[in-house]
Amino acid sequence: MPTLFPGDGIGPEIAASVKQIFKAAGVPIEWEEHYVGTTLDPKTGSFVTYDSMESVRKYGIGLKGPMATPIGKGHKSLNLTLRKELGLYANVRPCLSIPGYKTRYDNVDLVTIRENTEGEYSGLEHQVVKGVVESLKIITRQASMRVAEYAFHYAKTNGRKRVSAIHKANIMKKTDGLFLQCCREVAEQYPDIVYEEVIIDNCCMMLVKNPALFDVLVMPNLYGDIISDLCAGLIGGLGLTPSGNIGDNGLALMEAVHGTAPDIAGKNKANPTALLLSAVMMLRHLNMNEQAEKIQNAVLKTIEEGKYLTGDLGGNAGTTEYTNAVCEKL
Amino acid sequence: MPTLFPGDGIGPEIAASVKQIFKAAGVPIEWEEHYVGTTLDPKTGSFVTYDSMESVRKYGIGLKGPMATPIGKGHKSLNLTLRKELGLYANVRPCLSIPGYKTRYDNVDLVTIRENTEGEYSGLEHQVVKGVVESLKIITRQASMRVAEYAFHYAKTNGRKRVSAIHKANIMKKTDGLFLQCCREVAEQYPDIVYEEVIIDNCCMMLVKNPALFDVLVMPNLYGDIISDLCAGLIGGLGLTPSGNIGDNGLALMEAVHGTAPDIAGKNKANPTALLLSAVMMLRHLNMNEQAEKIQNAVLKTIEEGKYLTGDLGGNAGTTEYTNAVCEKL
Ligand SMILES: CC(C)[C@H](C(=O)O)[C@@H](O)C(=O)O
Ligand SMILES: CC(C)[C@H](C(=O)O)[C@@H](O)C(=O)O
Repeated sequence: MPTLFPGDGIGPEIAASVKQIFKAAGVPIEWEEHYVGTTLDPKTGSFVTYDSMESVRKYGIGLKGPMATPIGKGHKSLNLTLRKELGLYANVRPCLSIPGYKTRYDNVDLVTIRENTEGEYSGLEHQVVKGVVESLKIITRQASMRVAEYAFHYAKTNGRKRVSAIHKANIMKKTDGLFLQCCREVAEQYPDIVYEEVIIDNCCMMLVKNPALFDVLVMPNLYGDIISDLCAGLIGGLGLTPSGNIGDNGLALMEAVHGTAPDIAGKNKANPTALLLSAVMMLRHLNMNEQAEKIQNAVLKTIEEGKYLTGDLGGNAGTTEYTNAVCEKL
Repeated sequence: MPTLFPGDGIGPEIAASVKQIFKAAGVPIEWEEHYVGTTLDPKTGSFVTYDSMESVRKYGIGLKGPMATPIGKGHKSLNLTLRKELGLYANVRPCLSIPGYKTRYDNVDLVTIRENTEGEYSGLEHQVVKGVVESLKIITRQASMRVAEYAFHYAKTNGRKRVSAIHKANIMKKTDGLFLQCCREVAEQYPDIVYEEVIIDNCCMMLVKNPALFDVLVMPNLYGDIISDLCAGLIGGLGLTPSGNIGDNGLALMEAVHGTAPDIAGKNKANPTALLLSAVMMLRHLNMNEQAEKIQNAVLKTIEEGKYLTGDLGGNAGTTEYTNAVCEKL
C-alpha cells in the first residue's frame, strides 16, 4: 500500500492521471493518500505531517507530486523535510531520451545518483564579521559510503557498466577527497564495473558535448543537484524526468521534481509524464517489472505518436486526453 | 609591453602562433616573455617566479598559455597562484558560436563572469572527527561587490542587455544571499540593464535547453568554474574558448584555459584558437579594437573555410599551416 502525496498546484491532477493509468493497467495497488496541510505540524516543523511520514515508514514506498514550500521565514522546505525525516540518502534520476520528443540529444541513457543529506546542504552558516559570511560543507564517511554502495549496487543490478564519481577534489581536497576515497573502496568490490573520477567542470563540458560518455554518475549533494538538472535538460526538462529517493531498508519515495505550476493548476493542462515515469520507477522498485514495462511503453508510445500532447510538449491536449491516450495503449 | 607566458606542453607552439599572427596583422606590440621554471620560487611558493608576476604588475597586461601544475604534495596550482598573487578577481569568458564549427547549438552569444578569489576555493578545510570533514565556503561583501560591479560595467560597455546572477541562495541563504544582495545593489545603478536571479540547477537546465535565454552571467567562484566549462562545451570546448582574468586598476591576464596536452606537445598538432581569441580579448582590453576585429575575423574565416583545421577540429593541418592560413586572411 504505497503512500501517495498528490502535492500542490498541478499535483492532484497529475496524481489522478497516475491512478487512472494504474487502474487501466491492472496494477494491484491501493494508495494511501496524504495531503500537505496548511498548518505547521509541530512534530516535523513543516506542513508535511508526521502521520503522512509514518505512512511512508510503514509501507516503505511512496509517490510524491510537487509540493510548494510556503514563502516566508521559518518555513522549512517540504522536500528537504521529507529527505531529512525519512533518511532518504540517495536521489536517483534515470535520464533516458524519449524517442518521440526531439531535443538536441539522441539516445541519452544515463543515471545520476546524488547524495541527498549533507554536503553544502548542512544548513550551517554564519556571519564571521560584517560583510564576511561562511557556509560549511560537511562530508562524512558514513553518508559517502552508503551512497557509493547504492550507486555500485544499482549499476550492477541494472546492467550498467561504468560508474563515474564527480568531484572537485583538486580544490576541496579533504571533503571531496573523502568522498572519492569512499567511492574507490566500494569500487574495489565491483571489479566488473569500470570506475572513473571526473572533475565536475569537465564533466559538465563533456555532458553537453557527448552525454554518451556517461553511464552511472555518483556525486555529493550540490553537484548532484546541478548535474541532475543539467541531464534532465538534455532530454527535455523536469516535466519528462522521473526521480526516486532511496532510504534505509529499501525505503523509497519516488517523485516528480518539477514545480507546482500554479499558473496552470486546475486547468487540465498539466503534463503528468514525470510523475508517471516516477510511478514506473516505483513499480520496478517493487519488482513489478511487467507492469512497469507496460506503462512505460504506453507513455513513450503516446508521446512518440504525438497526437495527444500537453502544451509543454507542443501539443494542445489536456491532462485527461493524454491520460486516456496512454490508457488506450495498455 | 604585455607579458607572455607561453606555458608548458603545447604552450610554446600556440604562443608562437599568436606572435606570428600579431606580426602579420601589424600589431605594434613587443612581448616580454616569461617561462615557468622548474624550481620553486620562495617568494611565490610555486614555479611561477616572482619576477614574472612583477612583469604583469608593471605592464598591467599579459597573455598566458596552459601551465601544468606539478603533481605531488606541496605544489600550489600555478593558475591559482597567479590569480591570488595578482589579485585577479574576475574571470571573464565570452562564449560565441564559431560559424564554421558545428555543435548542437547555433548562435550562442553569452559571457560568464566568475568571482575568482574566494567561495569554495578558500582552501580552509579540516577533519572534525575521523570520518567527518568540512570545507568552508567564504563569501565577502568586498569580493562580491567588485565582481558584480565588473559584470554590470562589462555589460554596459559591451552593449549587453541583461545580467543574470547565478546562485543557490535557497539553500545557502547567507553566503549566496550576500552575493545576491551585492548584485542587487549594483543592479540599481544600472537601470538600463535587466537584472535577474537564476538558481544554478535551473540555470544549467536552461543553458542546455536554450542558451539564447542568457546574456551576461555573474556568479560565485565554484558556480563560475562549472558554468563556464558547460558554456564552453556548448560552442565546442576549451580549445575554442577565450578567457580573461581581471584585477585591480585594469590589470588583465588573458589565458587559454585548456590543458597542456603533453601527448601532442612539440608535434605541430596543437590548435592555437583559444589562445588566439584570448589575445584578441587582450587587444580589446587595450582598446586596439581594429586589430582585434581583424584577427578575430581571420581566425573565424579560417575555421569556417575548413581547409586548414587541426586534428581536434576534424582536420589534419598542423599548427603552422593553420597559422599561415590565418595570416593570409589578414
Ligand atoms: C527545491 C530545492 C531545495 C531542491 C534542492 O536543491 O535539492 C531541488 O532543486 C531539487 O533538486 O530537489
Ligand atoms: C585547474 C583548476 C584549479 C581550475 C579551477 O578550478 O579554477 C580550472 O578548472 C579553471 O577553471 O581555471
